[in-house]
Amino acid sequence: MEHTVTFTRHDNATPMVVNVPTNTLLADAAHLADIEIGQPCGGQGRCGRCAVQVTAGNIRRRSTVRLSPTDVDKGYALACQTVVEGDVEIYVPPQEKIERRLTTDRVVADVTVPPEYEYQEAQTVRRLYIQLTPPSMDDQTDDWSRLQTALRLQHHFEYVTCSLGILQKMGAALREGDWNVTAILDVTNVIPSGEARQAVRLIDLQPGLLDEYSPLWGCAVDIGTTTVTLWLVDLITGQVKAQVSEYNGQIARGEDVISRIIFSGKNGGEELRQRVLETINKLLELACKRVKMPQGIVTPDQVVKVTIAGNSTMIHLLLGIPAGSIRLSPFITAVNHPPLMTGRDVGVNTNPDAVVDCLPGVASYVGADITAGVLSSGLEKAETVTLFLDVGTNGEIVLGDRDWLVTCACSAGPAFEGAGVVNGMRATIGAIEEVWINTESLEPTYRVIGGGKPRGICGSGLISLLAEAFITGVIDKGGNVDLTINTPRVREGSHGGEYVVAWGSETELGDDIVITRVDIDNLLRAKAAIYAGFSILAENVGIPLETVDKVLIGGSFGKYINVEKAVQIGLLPDMEWSRFEFLGNTSVKGAYFALLDWRSRERIKEIAARMTYVELSADNSFYDAFTSALFLPHTDLSKFPSVAETLEEKGT
Amino acid sequence: MEHTVTFTRHDNATPMVVNVPTNTLLADAAHLADIEIGQPCGGQGRCGRCAVQVTAGNIRRRSTVRLSPTDVDKGYALACQTVVEGDVEIYVPPQEKIERRLTTDRVVADVTVPPEYEYQEAQTVRRLYIQLTPPSMDDQTDDWSRLQTALRLQHHFEYVTCSLGILQKMGAALREGDWNVTAILDVTNVIPSGEARQAVRLIDLQPGLLDEYSPLWGCAVDIGTTTVTLWLVDLITGQVKAQVSEYNGQIARGEDVISRIIFSGKNGGEELRQRVLETINKLLELACKRVKMPQGIVTPDQVVKVTIAGNSTMIHLLLGIPAGSIRLSPFITAVNHPPLMTGRDVGVNTNPDAVVDCLPGVASYVGADITAGVLSSGLEKAETVTLFLDVGTNGEIVLGDRDWLVTCACSAGPAFEGAGVVNGMRATIGAIEEVWINTESLEPTYRVIGGGKPRGICGSGLISLLAEAFITGVIDKGGNVDLTINTPRVREGSHGGEYVVAWGSETELGDDIVITRVDIDNLLRAKAAIYAGFSILAENVGIPLETVDKVLIGGSFGKYINVEKAVQIGLLPDMEWSRFEFLGNTSVKGAYFALLDWRSRERIKEIAARMTYVELSADNSFYDAFTSALFLPHTDLSKFPSVAETLEEKGT
Repeated sequence: MEHTVTFTRHDNATPMVVNVPTNTLLADAAHLADIEIGQPCGGQGRCGRCAVQVTAGNIRRRSTVRLSPTDVDKGYALACQTVVEGDVEIYVPPQEKIERRLTTDRVVADVTVPPEYEYQEAQTVRRLYIQLTPPSMDDQTDDWSRLQTALRLQHHFEYVTCSLGILQKMGAALREGDWNVTAILDVTNVIPSGEARQAVRLIDLQPGLLDEYSPLWGCAVDIGTTTVTLWLVDLITGQVKAQVSEYNGQIARGEDVISRIIFSGKNGGEELRQRVLETINKLLELACKRVKMPQGIVTPDQVVKVTIAGNSTMIHLLLGIPAGSIRLSPFITAVNHPPLMTGRDVGVNTNPDAVVDCLPGVASYVGADITAGVLSSGLEKAETVTLFLDVGTNGEIVLGDRDWLVTCACSAGPAFEGAGVVNGMRATIGAIEEVWINTESLEPTYRVIGGGKPRGICGSGLISLLAEAFITGVIDKGGNVDLTINTPRVREGSHGGEYVVAWGSETELGDDIVITRVDIDNLLRAKAAIYAGFSILAENVGIPLETVDKVLIGGSFGKYINVEKAVQIGLLPDMEWSRFEFLGNTSVKGAYFALLDWRSRERIKEIAARMTYVELSADNSFYDAFTSALFLPHTDLSKFPSVAETLEEKGT
Repeated sequence: MEHTVTFTRHDNATPMVVNVPTNTLLADAAHLADIEIGQPCGGQGRCGRCAVQVTAGNIRRRSTVRLSPTDVDKGYALACQTVVEGDVEIYVPPQEKIERRLTTDRVVADVTVPPEYEYQEAQTVRRLYIQLTPPSMDDQTDDWSRLQTALRLQHHFEYVTCSLGILQKMGAALREGDWNVTAILDVTNVIPSGEARQAVRLIDLQPGLLDEYSPLWGCAVDIGTTTVTLWLVDLITGQVKAQVSEYNGQIARGEDVISRIIFSGKNGGEELRQRVLETINKLLELACKRVKMPQGIVTPDQVVKVTIAGNSTMIHLLLGIPAGSIRLSPFITAVNHPPLMTGRDVGVNTNPDAVVDCLPGVASYVGADITAGVLSSGLEKAETVTLFLDVGTNGEIVLGDRDWLVTCACSAGPAFEGAGVVNGMRATIGAIEEVWINTESLEPTYRVIGGGKPRGICGSGLISLLAEAFITGVIDKGGNVDLTINTPRVREGSHGGEYVVAWGSETELGDDIVITRVDIDNLLRAKAAIYAGFSILAENVGIPLETVDKVLIGGSFGKYINVEKAVQIGLLPDMEWSRFEFLGNTSVKGAYFALLDWRSRERIKEIAARMTYVELSADNSFYDAFTSALFLPHTDLSKFPSVAETLEEKGT
C-alpha cells in the first residue's frame, strides 16, 4: 500500500511530498524527497541526530534511543528507526540538517618548498620534448612506433606503454604540432626506487614544444573522515599554488569510519564512493579556479599526478573496495598499499591518465594518513623519543624516534566533533567554542563562533566545558553532576544530571543548551581511549610517558584544542606545554612531500614497513588503562600533578 | 523553421513522423525516425543505395548521381544528398533497407586443435590454485599482500599486478572460498616471448578450488569490413566450442573502409565503435548460448582472453582511434601493433580484466587479418612460391614462401558484394547466385538463393553473369553490350546498354533485373585491381605468375567464387584449377592459433616484421597493369590460354 509523506521545514520552504509503500523508513522517504537528514551513526539508531517531528499520521517507532518520553509525546521520532504506516506529515527541525562549513581559507598553512627540491631529480613525472621526422611514402611507420623510436633514441626510454586514450589522441597531437610534441611520462619504474624494471608510461601528449617554465600540475590530497583537503602543486617549482578544504560528502551517511563501513555494507559502496569523489572533484575545480597563471586558465584535466593520504577505511571507500573486514576481528584490510592507478580508474576529474598514488598504510586503523603524518612531522628522524597523536574521529598514535616506531589506533568516536552529544554540533557558526565557569557563582560565560546566539557546543567547547565543570566542582572526577550544589544551572534531566550552559532565552532555537550525564560519559570514553592508547603504547616499549620529549599533535582538530583544558580532562599527558607542538594537517603535508619527491615516497613506504602495529583490542592491559582513564583527569591523580595543583588552589 | 517529415514503408508499418529544421538531410531525418537506410558509400552520394521516394512536399537535391531523369520525375532522391525544405512525405522502398543475413552455421569450418597443443606450455593465461593461511590477530596482513605472498611462495611469481576491479572483489572471493581461491593470471610477460620482464597480471579470482577440467574460455575474433566472426574456445583443451558470424553493424554507415573512415571523420568515431562492439557482444552472447557444459551455463563474463584480427581500419575503429591518416597520402596508421588491453578498456562484455590482444598488422592496407591469414594458411612455411589472396571488400595479396614475403593491397571495392551495381545485393535470400546464358538463344537461366523469386544479383552471380555474357558475346572484351544482337534481352537503358537477366514478371519486386554498362565497369575495375595487384607484386620480385605453385584464397567471399568463371573474367590467373585452394576465413583461424599458443602469436609478429609492403599507388606500373586488366579477360589474351580456347570453341 502506498502512503503520502509530506515534509515541512523550519525555513518554510515548499513542503516536499513523496509516495512510498507501507513500512518505508522515514530516512528513505526523506532521501527520496531530496531532504538531507544527517545520520552520523550510519542509520543504526545510536546517535539520535536524525530525530524529526511527526505532526500527523501513523508511524511505527522501532526504537526511541536518545528520545525522552516527552520527546515521544511531542511526536519526535528517529528517521532511521521509524516506518510509515499511513499518510504522514513530518517536520524536519533545523538542527538536524547537515551543517556545512567551508574550512577553506581557515587552514592555509605556510608551506615552503623543500629547499633541496629539484624537479629533474625528484619527480616521477617528466615533461619531454620530441621532434619527429614526418612520415612519407618512403617511411610509412605507424605513429606509435615512430614515437616509441624517438623516445628511445632521443630520451633513452627503451620500453614505453600507453593507454587506449592516448592512442586515440596521438595522431591529432603529432599532426597539430607539425611532428613536434610534448610528452608527459610516468618514469616511476626506471627510477632506482622502482619495484621492478618496468616500462615508462605515457600520461599525455600535447602538440608542439611547450614552454618549459609552464607549470606541470599535481595534487596532494588528504581524505579525512570529516574533512577533505587538497593542495594544488606546480611540480616544476614544487610550489603549492592553492589549498582548499571541504567537508567529506560522506558525513551525511555516518560520522565515524565504523558507521560508514556499516552503511556501505548495507547499501553497497557506490554511494559513499560517489560522495567522496564529488567532494574531491569539487575541490579540484575550486583549487584550479584559485590559480591565475600567465599561461592561461588552469583546469582539472591538466593535473597529471595525484598523491592521496587517508585512513584505511577512507581509501577503501574511495576505491570502492568493500571495507567490511576492517571492522570485524581480526580487522583485515583488503589492501594496505594499493597499486599505482590512473585518474580514469579512480574517477577523479584529472587527466584520465594521471598517476593516482594512494600512499601505503600499516593496518586497518593505521592508514596512510599516519604514515604520511610520520614523514611530515619529522618523527621518523627524531633524535629523542617523540609521541605523535593524530586526533580526529579516530585517534591514531605513534611513538618512537629515528630508530624505532610503534603505533596503535583507538576509536575516540565523534564526541569531540559534536556527535553523540545532546547539544553537540560541528565547529560552525553558532557553536560554543570555549566555556568558562565562575568558581563562586558557577555561572558560565562562553564564546560563540560567529558571535551570534549559540545553537550548540562544538568539540573545543566540550573539552573546555568539561574541564571547567570539573575544576569548579560542578561535576566530580567520575563525571557525575553534583545535584546538591546551589544553582539552577544544575538539575535532573531526562538523561540524568545536567548542567545548563545557556538558557533557552539566549539561544538561537529557544531551547536550553545543556551538557548531560550521557554526554559526559561519551566524552570521557573518547578521551580515555586516546589516553589509554598512548599510555599502553608507551608501556609496551618500556618508555615512561614523562620521558617523552615531544608531543606532536596533528589533525585539523588539533588546532582547536586548548592545551591546558585538554590536560585538565586527561586527554593529553601532564607535561610542560612547551613540549606540545601543533602541526595542523600532517597527512596532506606528507602527501605533498610524496607528490614532489620519489625519495619521500619511498620513505613513507619504509615508515609503513618499520612501524610495529599494536592491536589494542587484543591487549588486556588496554582495557585496564582505559577504565582508569575514564575519570577526570585519571584514577591516579599523581599522573597529573599540575591538575592536582589547580584543584588544590580552587579548593574543590 | 521546423518541418514535419513522414516516412511510410513498403510493409505498411505505422508511418514514422519527425520534426526537423529546414535543410536537414533526409538521411538524418530517417536516423531520427529510427529508420535504417543503408549508406554503403558513407553518405557521399556515390552509390545510389539510399534512394527514397518523395511522395509529397518540397525537398532540394544536391546531387542526383545514379538517378535517371525518369527516377527523378518519379520523386526518387538520395537520402544522403537531399534536404528538407517543407513538410514532406517519404516512401522508403524495401530494397534500400539494410538486408541482414545470418551467416551463422553456414561457415562452420572443420577446426582441429593443433596436435601439439598443451595448455601448460602454450597458454599465456594460467589457472592456479592457491591455499592461504587465514588471517588472525597475530597475522593481520592485508588480503592483497597475503595473496601476493602465496603467489610468490606457491607459484614463484615475484611480481603480480591487478586492477582496481580485482581489488574490489578480492575480499569476498577469499572469504567465500574459505581462503582457498582459484586465480587466473596473464603470464605473457614471464614467458620467454615477452617484450620485457614485467609483472604477471591477475585477471580473475574465484572462490574455492575450481575443477581443473572445467573450461577456461577464450575467443578468437575476425572483424571483417562486412562480416564479424567469433570462435569460442576452451583454452584448456584448445577446442573450438562455438563458431558464430554476423554482419558488421557498421555496414549501414559505409560498405568499404574508405567510406567508414570518411563517415567517422565527419561524425566522430563513437557511432562506428559502438556498432561493431554491439556486433561483437551479440556474437559473444550467441556463442555462449550455443555451448552446453556439464559445469553449467557459460556467460560472456567467463571469457578471459580475446584475440582479434582485422584490417587496420577495422582495428582503429574498434578502438576508437581516428583513422583519417590511413586514407590520405602517405597512408599512415596510428598504430600497427596495439598494446595488450583489457575487456574493460575495449568495451567487450567479457570479464572486464580479460586480455584483449589485437594482432599486429603491417601497414594501412595490410592489417592483422593478413598477418593472421599468412600464419593460418601456412604460406610463411611454404616450400614453393605461393600466392595468398584475401578477397573481401579490400583485396589483400601476399606472395612468397618460407624465406620471403611481399604484400600489397588494392581497393577492389564493394562491387563483388553487390554495392555500386544497379540490381546488386548481398548473398541473401532472393539473390541470383549463378547465371548461365544459352549460346544460341542468349536466354539466361539462373539459381536463386532460397529458391524463390529473384530480387537482385549477388557477387558470385555477377562474376558468373559477367563471364557468361562475355563467353556468349553478349558483351565484348571491353565490357560493351552488343546492341546489334537479336534478342529483347539486350537494350539501351538509362545507364547505357544493358542485359535483362530476369523480366519483371518473374521477380519479387516486379521490376526487370538487369546488368548495365555502369555495373560492368565497376566489376571490371574491381577484378582489374586484384589482378593488377598480384601481377605487379609478382613482377616486383621477378617471379613470373605462371611459376607460382599454389594460389591460396581466403576470405568468406572466396567460398562463393566459381574458379572457372573467375578465370574467365580475369579475376584469377589462368592456371590448373588444382593449384587453387579455398581456405575460408584464414583471419579468424590465425587469431585462433594466436589465442592458443604464444609461439603462434610470436610468429604473427615475425610475419608482420618479415613482410615487405609494396604501396601500389606509388607504383606507376600498377596503373598500366590495372588498365590492361580492365578488359575481359585481359588486354593480352595470351595470359589466359584456357579462356582463348573456350572463346575459340564457342566461336565468339
